[in-house]
Order: sequence, then structure tokens, then C-alpha cells
Amino acid sequence: MKLLKEKILNEGVALSDTVLKVDHFLNHQIDPVLMAEIGKAFKERFTTQKITKILTLESSGIAPSVMAGLEFGVPVVFARKRKSLTLSEGLLTADVYSYTKQETNSIAVADKFLSSGDSVLIIDDFLANGEAAHALVDIVRQAGADTAGIGIVIEKSFQPGGEKLRSAGHRVESLARISSLSDGRIEFLSEVEA
Amino acid sequence: MKLLKEKILNEGVALSDTVLKVDHFLNHQIDPVLMAEIGKAFKERFTTQKITKILTLESSGIAPSVMAGLEFGVPVVFARKRKSLTLSEGLLTADVYSYTKQETNSIAVADKFLSSGDSVLIIDDFLANGEAAHALVDIVRQAGADTAGIGIVIEKSFQPGGEKLRSAGHRVESLARISSLSDGRIEFLSEVEA
Repeated sequence: MKLLKEKILNEGVALSDTVLKVDHFLNHQIDPVLMAEIGKAFKERFTTQKITKILTLESSGIAPSVMAGLEFGVPVVFARKRKSLTLSEGLLTADVYSYTKQETNSIAVADKFLSSGDSVLIIDDFLANGEAAHALVDIVRQAGADTAGIGIVIEKSFQPGGEKLRSAGHRVESLARISSLSDGRIEFLSEVEA
Repeated sequence: MKLLKEKILNEGVALSDTVLKVDHFLNHQIDPVLMAEIGKAFKERFTTQKITKILTLESSGIAPSVMAGLEFGVPVVFARKRKSLTLSEGLLTADVYSYTKQETNSIAVADKFLSSGDSVLIIDDFLANGEAAHALVDIVRQAGADTAGIGIVIEKSFQPGGEKLRSAGHRVESLARISSLSDGRIEFLSEVEA
């Protein structure tokens, strides 16, 4: 997605070999016009799929998901992050290990919002090690619903998440795939590879 | 706003005299079509105001704010909630007391995203005691920026937040104003009052 890649090159910062900061337009300040384009791009990528619901994770997944929800004409559900879960009645939960923070958190979705007839598009802002996406897939499975696809805004394809999810048979569509952040330089997979 | 009031009546639940649950369309599952209409409604309410930025709070403020940002053609910044702030360099912070949870949390915005020339529309999903809105106003003040208005999706007008903000000279526009949640019944301020 050309507009997204331009934004990443112009406003993103490679903080290290693995960390890309995009707080100017995606996860602190948000560019609504870009989000609307991202919503359309997800619709194009999954246009042949039957989608009944979009599932994402607070907070940075919400903006692109709501724009996609508008394109697909389906509700968006966002999983909540919790330090620990004492009460889980009526909740579908899964654990997410954060390599950045080196801690495990729970994510939770009210079970009333996912049912066995649902065909779910999972959307998230980043895909790195795939921990969050894997937890969302697990929540969809617990609901007896079907994961129709996984839509990612920015995939760091030099980390194993994308490969793991694709090997497991998931259709993963990433709007920008980054091949390297070495030496402060942001490089994308070539269009042929992507 | 008619569509919003219908949603609240049809899908909202008065859990107590003070708690309204709207997780079917606003703060867990999100109705993207309703959010787009909410964005348009905020644009109508503040159409004469100069707005350069929208400021909200994660997570439930993000969806209505991004849709409003699309209408106004301005960026959206969402404040992050934190348990405590050890490091606050480059951050504008304020404390928010939650009457529901009976605890104080910090909210934070990177100072690079608000500047003295900004004319800020603050948007939030709920207005009750006004703690969150007051903290956002304080962050705008710390940045030397101007609060052009406060847009609220659902105001519980029987709680003091709206009155406090209006008395302080703020223009507060709430798309639905609830006068009572007693006995499990949801009642709105009459159009004349609202």
C-alpha cells in the first residue's frame, strides 16, 4: 500500500533493529485519512471472503478496524488487555507474551460478541512475533467461530510471526512488509516478495 | 442525535442508577456505521469552530474521534492511561480519579503532538463526573493550546461533570443526554432541555 509505505518512510523512525516507531500516524497520533484508506485496502484484500465480524486488540488496532468495519459493513469487537483475570465469567481469554516488555498479559472478549456462525477478520496494527494475533485466533477458536483472515497494517517480516501464521494455514495480508530496520534504515520487501 | 438515542434505548442496559452499559455498540463491540454518523454529528455541532486537532482517551474514545477527525480533516491524538508514571520526559500528564474503580490513574500525551497554536476539540465516549475531560483540558492547557470545545457521545446529565465544564466556560456538546437511569429505565433530557 503506497500511501502507507510513504508515511512509514517519511514519519516512521527505526529506533533499533527491531523497533519501528510510528506514533505520528498510527499508535498515538492517528491520521484519519490514512486509516480510511487502510480500511479500503483491507476490503480489497479480503473482498472474496465472507466476513461477519472484525476482531482487534485495544488500543492501536481500533482505528484501522473501525474503518475496515465501515467498508465491510460489520461490527468491530476489540479485545481488552488486562494485567490478570480474577473474574472470567462470560469472557473468552488468552495470554499474550510481550517480547518488548517481557511480560505476559491476558486479553479478553465477552463471549456474547462472538458466536459459532461468525467468520472473523482479525486486524492488528503490527505483526512481529505473532503473539497477539495467535491469541486472537485462539479466542475465535474458543467461540467456535472461523478465522477468515488476518489483516495487518505493518508486518516486520524479519520476525517469525507472519511465517508462523501462514504455515498454520491462515491467510495473512499485510499492507506494508518491512524486511529490515538495521542501521536506522527502513526497508520493505520488494513488491515481488510482498 | 436520534440514531444514537435509539441505539441506547434498544441495546443499552441501565445496570444501576448511575451505570449505563453500552458495550454492544460503543465500548467493546463497536458499530462503525453509528461511529461515522457520530463523526458527522460532531462536525455539525462544532462547524463554526476552528479545530486543528482532536484529543481523546484510549480506548473507547478512539472510534468516535477517528470518524470526527475524518470529517474535520485533522489528526487525532489519544492519551494513554498508565498506572503510574516513572518516566515523564516529553510527556504532558494529568491525573484522573475514577469514581467507579475508586482509584487514580495517570494519562499521558507526548508533548510533540500538541503545540501552542493548536485549537483542540476534546472528544470522549462518556461524561459523568468530568474527571477525564478535566484531565484532557489540563493537558491542552499545559501544551499552551486552546480547548475549542468538548464533544461527548453520552452525557449522564444527572452527574456533575457537564455542569462543571460548562460553568468553567467550555462549550460542551453531548450527542445524547441522559437524565435518569433509575429503576432500570433510561430517560433522556427533553429536546428543549437538551
